[in-house]
Amino acid sequence: MLTKEEISEGFMLLQDSICTALENEDGIGKFKEDNWKRAEGGGGRTRILQDGTVIEKGGVLYSAVHGLIPDFLKKNENAAVTLSGVEGREDEGQLLTTFYATGVSIVIHPKNPMVPIIHMNVRYFEMSTGVWWFGGGIDLTPHYVVEEDAKFFHNALKQSCDKHNPNYYKEYKKWADDYFFIKHRNETRGVGGIFFDKLTQTKDVTKEQLFDFVKEIGNTFAPTYTKLMNKNKSLPFNEVNKQWQLLRRGRYVEFNLIYDLGTKFGLESNGRVESILMSLPKTAGWEYDYQPESNSLEAKTLSFLKKDLSWA
Amino acid sequence: MLTKEEISEGFMLLQDSICTALENEDGIGKFKEDNWKRAEGGGGRTRILQDGTVIEKGGVLYSAVHGLIPDFLKKNENAAVTLSGVEGREDEGQLLTTFYATGVSIVIHPKNPMVPIIHMNVRYFEMSTGVWWFGGGIDLTPHYVVEEDAKFFHNALKQSCDKHNPNYYKEYKKWADDYFFIKHRNETRGVGGIFFDKLTQTKDVTKEQLFDFVKEIGNTFAPTYTKLMNKNKSLPFNEVNKQWQLLRRGRYVEFNLIYDLGTKFGLESNGRVESILMSLPKTAGWEYDYQPESNSLEAKTLSFLKKDLSWA
Repeated sequence: MLTKEEISEGFMLLQDSICTALENEDGIGKFKEDNWKRAEGGGGRTRILQDGTVIEKGGVLYSAVHGLIPDFLKKNENAAVTLSGVEGREDEGQLLTTFYATGVSIVIHPKNPMVPIIHMNVRYFEMSTGVWWFGGGIDLTPHYVVEEDAKFFHNALKQSCDKHNPNYYKEYKKWADDYFFIKHRNETRGVGGIFFDKLTQTKDVTKEQLFDFVKEIGNTFAPTYTKLMNKNKSLPFNEVNKQWQLLRRGRYVEFNLIYDLGTKFGLESNGRVESILMSLPKTAGWEYDYQPESNSLEAKTLSFLKKDLSWA
Repeated sequence: MLTKEEISEGFMLLQDSICTALENEDGIGKFKEDNWKRAEGGGGRTRILQDGTVIEKGGVLYSAVHGLIPDFLKKNENAAVTLSGVEGREDEGQLLTTFYATGVSIVIHPKNPMVPIIHMNVRYFEMSTGVWWFGGGIDLTPHYVVEEDAKFFHNALKQSCDKHNPNYYKEYKKWADDYFFIKHRNETRGVGGIFFDKLTQTKDVTKEQLFDFVKEIGNTFAPTYTKLMNKNKSLPFNEVNKQWQLLRRGRYVEFNLIYDLGTKFGLESNGRVESILMSLPKTAGWEYDYQPESNSLEAKTLSFLKKDLSWA
């Protein structure tokens, strides 16, 4: 059966191919790599591109960490869900449950407000108890929602999902709507995408098949996003557009610091702060009680930041 | 005995006097007032000053809200501490515990990076069970720590504390060091100040005396901060200083969105989002793995962002 080493290796190759594709489309920007080690076991390869022609600040991160299940994961309410199965085993006396987690995480903040922000994560988690699963997600956050682009993005995801299971897109698109949601603003983060977690083998699907699906999603990232970069990177923009970009980035910061579970667990588990917070933009802004003019492009964008819109 | 209406009235007067003092020192900026009502009871007077000469974005907020104790306060682990006493009473069958909360909250983000950010909060909380307390705090976040200013600020707080109890300053200064702490950065938010909570009557102190102390702290704000505004507002600054200000504001955003209990409870209780998030700066920034040059003013500032420094 597929080993954690094979999965980890697949994720490293994914990181490589995505970095190459992004550098090619950017034209000038180059990723800088930081290799880091985790005191308790494992480490990562953090790659950051700053001040390219298209990408203002972006990260493509690979990591593979392992060790004893941290205490905070056992106590934390959300993590308790994530780690269901751990507690039961412990009650049986297996106090030294270990885990192995590997994945690729990406956030790209472009310079031009007409190019959307994008995020992707694919991950694999296993425990010495034998429990394992895949998770992941990809979502698009346009500063200005362009229907054609949102449809293109969702159709690309749907095609990739459909190759593996006709129900995946519908199910994981809804999951993304619910996950990438800024509750206190009653706004979605952007136009969504797909989100999935806890995928493990059943009578209908093997571990290999699930990894093929996760790799398919990973491989959908580069051609889809570089196409959106290419289409929009030369569009003109003005000071109003830049101001609006700052406010949309402010919302992105709110989501990541208040709701994002990866950020939360990363910080609570004493993860590498600079890698976890690479998701934050170079600049962001907040204005008191900002209301876009009616019928403006900004107002139109807000009207699209809702759950359950059909894009594919 | 002092009523909640008298306390609320005192806080409104405090809001008035602070706004007047800040407008006078700013010279041009004027506070804009939004009156809002809370569906479940009460409301507030949110006053925001944007784009003044000294103040880039600042809020001085008064509110007085009341109603049934919200569910989230009963369930939340942190809130359970805040509301100790509620559960016991409920067990005795008093299911309809009501609360009344009033206070003034201030955050000022100046334009010039040589002028520090400041925050103050004073608050009063009571329940229909008879339990009540005062809380509050004030802390200074210089973009560049200037020892003379930090000492001036702490000495002003110490003098105000000492008029009421010789132990207050020491105790509440330590509390501020612990509270205004960005754990994942292992940095204090700034040079601290004082923080206190759950002050209620004992054999040594009456409700009136506690309110006098809280008002004293409130009245220390304006003369202390306007002096720091006045001293620093005309200092020259360059692009490096502005970039550093963005990064320091980024840390301020991290603290407020991840750790600040007022923000957390406000958002969880469906408070007025624009009032709660007025604490966020007009602009902020993040740079991957930024390291100030050794012996720079920026490095010097970081060296002061520690707990347990003696300023008074």
